[in-house]
Amino acid sequence: MSMPIARVNELDCEEFVQIFGNAVEHCSICAAAVWRHSPFNDVYQIYNKTAEFLDQLPISGKEAVLRLHPDLAGKLAISGRLTNESSREQTLSGMLALSETEKEMLERLNTSYKSKFKFPFVICVRENKKKAIFDGIRARLANTPEEETLVGLEEVKKICRLRLLDIVDPGCPKL
Amino acid sequence: MSMPIARVNELDCEEFVQIFGNAVEHCSICAAAVWRHSPFNDVYQIYNKTAEFLDQLPISGKEAVLRLHPDLAGKLAISGRLTNESSREQTLSGMLALSETEKEMLERLNTSYKSKFKFPFVICVRENKKKAIFDGIRARLANTPEEETLVGLEEVKKICRLRLLDIVDPGCPKL
Repeated sequence: MSMPIARVNELDCEEFVQIFGNAVEHCSICAAAVWRHSPFNDVYQIYNKTAEFLDQLPISGKEAVLRLHPDLAGKLAISGRLTNESSREQTLSGMLALSETEKEMLERLNTSYKSKFKFPFVICVRENKKKAIFDGIRARLANTPEEETLVGLEEVKKICRLRLLDIVDPGCPKL
Repeated sequence: MSMPIARVNELDCEEFVQIFGNAVEHCSICAAAVWRHSPFNDVYQIYNKTAEFLDQLPISGKEAVLRLHPDLAGKLAISGRLTNESSREQTLSGMLALSETEKEMLERLNTSYKSKFKFPFVICVRENKKKAIFDGIRARLANTPEEETLVGLEEVKKICRLRLLDIVDPGCPKL
């Protein structure tokens, strides 16, 4: 459904939010903020404005963005209640086809992580293989909450960038 | 479905967002931010934390919150696509039963308003009668965009307060 940028620039706010509302998982506020900058030159400008908006949120807002993400291979995934985007990403990553031992290990790591940070572990699974994901959660458990909020937010941006590129035709490749 | 505060304090983040995610229209990020402060003393504390979060948003975020609200008696209302909360509020206010002349007038005012401010006119219809609503939109059209963002946000807070009181039993009345 790759859409040319000219078509994106014709969308009114409601249509824009409908299409881009989950570029940041469950955060239609991002799309509603970014729409203000329409017309866009290209998909990269939509991405940059989204990243800028995320950076401007107070720390409580950044944490809330992370908190609206599902657990990796967690209960929403198991019960088939992920958003379409998350479902596709988690399935392709192989994280929904773990061995029993791996599942138990991930559950333990997820629990420790959430009990320390009060938000779920977020990683761009499309840019990481299983080993890197397990290594990532272990390494990031050592961060302070403030550090980890920012690390998590960078992953949100990577996920968002790929989701935007699924929706909008990037046009000529950037030189 | 009025819920005692003790029950609210047992909710995990996902459940909390499910129940309170539309206390601010389409802004589950508010509920996700406010959950951090659980356990709450009472519904008024949930309200205060939500208002505090809204106040801390950058101006682009405040505008985006307004932008996620439906037009008053607009196309979502006409086509029956409002959220349950908005539908109930707009119906009770009488704004969905206007005469043809009033409808045309409101449409003209809504259009001028949105073209000036780039977000829809938001007013707590449960606290205003039809005349006050029409007078409100006319008077507020004279505001600067910055003033009007803050005026709109105060209405968002009033709507939120009443929605929270629909969900949570306030317990003893405040002395």
